[in-house]
Amino acid sequence: MDRALHLALNGWGRTNPNPLVGAVVYKDGKIISEGYHEKVGGPHAEVNALEEAGKLAAGATMYVTLEPCCHYGKTPPCVNKIIEYEIKKVVIAALDPNKEVAGKGVEILRQAGIEVEVGLKEKEAKIQNEIFRKYIVTSKPFVISKWGMSLDGKIATRTGDSKWITSKQARLDTHRIRARVAGILVGIGTVLEDDPSLTCRHPEYSDHDPIRIIVDTTLKIPLDSKIMRTANSVHTIVATLDKNKTNKKVEEIKSQGGELLFISADLQGKVNLNELLESLGKQGIDSILVEGGETIHGTMIDLKLVDKFITYMGNVIIGGKKAPVPVGGKGYETLNNSIETKDMSVEVLQDTVKVSSYPTEEKDGD
Amino acid sequence: MDRALHLALNGWGRTNPNPLVGAVVYKDGKIISEGYHEKVGGPHAEVNALEEAGKLAAGATMYVTLEPCCHYGKTPPCVNKIIEYEIKKVVIAALDPNKEVAGKGVEILRQAGIEVEVGLKEKEAKIQNEIFRKYIVTSKPFVISKWGMSLDGKIATRTGDSKWITSKQARLDTHRIRARVAGILVGIGTVLEDDPSLTCRHPEYSDHDPIRIIVDTTLKIPLDSKIMRTANSVHTIVATLDKNKTNKKVEEIKSQGGELLFISADLQGKVNLNELLESLGKQGIDSILVEGGETIHGTMIDLKLVDKFITYMGNVIIGGKKAPVPVGGKGYETLNNSIETKDMSVEVLQDTVKVSSYPTEEKDGD
Repeated sequence: MDRALHLALNGWGRTNPNPLVGAVVYKDGKIISEGYHEKVGGPHAEVNALEEAGKLAAGATMYVTLEPCCHYGKTPPCVNKIIEYEIKKVVIAALDPNKEVAGKGVEILRQAGIEVEVGLKEKEAKIQNEIFRKYIVTSKPFVISKWGMSLDGKIATRTGDSKWITSKQARLDTHRIRARVAGILVGIGTVLEDDPSLTCRHPEYSDHDPIRIIVDTTLKIPLDSKIMRTANSVHTIVATLDKNKTNKKVEEIKSQGGELLFISADLQGKVNLNELLESLGKQGIDSILVEGGETIHGTMIDLKLVDKFITYMGNVIIGGKKAPVPVGGKGYETLNNSIETKDMSVEVLQDTVKVSSYPTEEKDGD
Repeated sequence: MDRALHLALNGWGRTNPNPLVGAVVYKDGKIISEGYHEKVGGPHAEVNALEEAGKLAAGATMYVTLEPCCHYGKTPPCVNKIIEYEIKKVVIAALDPNKEVAGKGVEILRQAGIEVEVGLKEKEAKIQNEIFRKYIVTSKPFVISKWGMSLDGKIATRTGDSKWITSKQARLDTHRIRARVAGILVGIGTVLEDDPSLTCRHPEYSDHDPIRIIVDTTLKIPLDSKIMRTANSVHTIVATLDKNKTNKKVEEIKSQGGELLFISADLQGKVNLNELLESLGKQGIDSILVEGGETIHGTMIDLKLVDKFITYMGNVIIGGKKAPVPVGGKGYETLNNSIETKDMSVEVLQDTVKVSSYPTEEKDGD
């Protein structure tokens, strides 16, 4: 199963909004074939592994990271294929997250006389498909909030210098995450201050730019910003208020290749982030990396919209009462009602500590 | 040597301003005796180990974490004792930090025909005695700045709630550090906001309260604060401006058992921290743990007075533009002139990440 989980990663950033899946066919003490879900619309992992095995599959055991499908989607159901190739036993890491479907694939396999075992490396498999598991059930994107800060919790010096607080390896790790998610979201403040590209610059994932989403309540985005200058080649969405539909900047943004998304105002008169996420979900965007400054992180956290937190902490002390911090917004009044996180994982990336964890509240999805 | 380093830790918090030292006498493939420096004024580690070994020491190898002394202090020189017990070979982790003395102990041993090796586990030994190594050379205390914060770099919610951001195990770790240092320092803001005890509450080190030092420029300390109410039993120093000598609160503080330390003003009219540290050093205080809020941490960092940084980051997201942060002060203008840290060590203490590191600038000492 470890091998199957590892194989699944080969689909990193190419399968959205489908899951990452890996499969291994094992017989007489050795692996006879392997497969993974390569890209959305392509054959499933099980099919790839079975076709590679051919007749050797008969009587073998299949290890697969997700319950095989039993419905006709873009490809025929995998359970049929498993039965057809006369697999003897199927070991599944995790069931389908969709509660109405979960277990049905298993049932069909068992009815066909195939032995089925569920739950091996279940936790790892669920984490690997955390994006898919939320999106398939709720149609809302899985939201990752990420920031890089100093040992004293600053994201820049008081003059705005932030290059670089975190290590090269940590920044590369961020680009790897950018390759995995469907969208990257920042507030207009970040565009005005940093003029970022928000593209994926990772040697292994050069063609994986996520859709750039700019939350821009009053359409302040400069037409000569890096983002607007590249909006023809990298999908870019400017999310603004409904009432700006007739603003002349709308046409200018469109003429440079930008897409507009009109959203109603929240109680503060800003873009309603709940509605924005729903709207992005409807477009098939299964995951969002929030990389903005304190305002957007603050609002996301105040609204409890975040599914995963990633903090990179670099080996720098910046100091300063006026130096910017990662999260603004209103914040929580007491520790009792603040967000506690669980399943913390800690990695050291070249003198930068990366901490990932998940809110403990019961969220939608799994 | 690992065993000797481990033995040395038994003196934790009892040897200041002396070093932690461990020694092992080894012969014919086994350890025949062990010793460590138990407390200031008591016999040195080498003597303890030699006396336990008795005649068996003849022809043996001694592993010792610090170069044996060659001068008469509170106890006679250890080199004499080593020669007297006919040790054949001495393996030393680190030389004496005092440059004028370093190597002299080794020289005397060699002249007596004893084989000497230096440098085994040197780095570990130097870190273990980082406090001693600075203080013996500069007469200024080794300063550790410590804070506990959330994953988003806050030390409390916007309403001041900070109980608890870090885990129980992390807080216990802080009490262990309190046991090790000679003094604990906070600004008056922390006393006014949190009314802390600043004692060492650790089951293994219950009698190890460090001296409490309150930086209180205008003598605002409440006489009914926990600190002042216990100033008769726990050594407490209130550091204030020279010009407050005639303030009537001085006598009130003294009558409750508090000690006053009068310091000149810095350019901002506040207690000059450089002078304060020098003054504390003269009193034999070899180490200070700074646990205050953003003002004291900010000033310490602006003045580059810190020798070691410890950040505890708990599994909580607090948010809020107005929530307090660990370090205030002026701060650094660019990343180039901010404080980069090195020799980072990372530990996970029950869902709290502890990161320790040291400023890269060449500091006094070693």
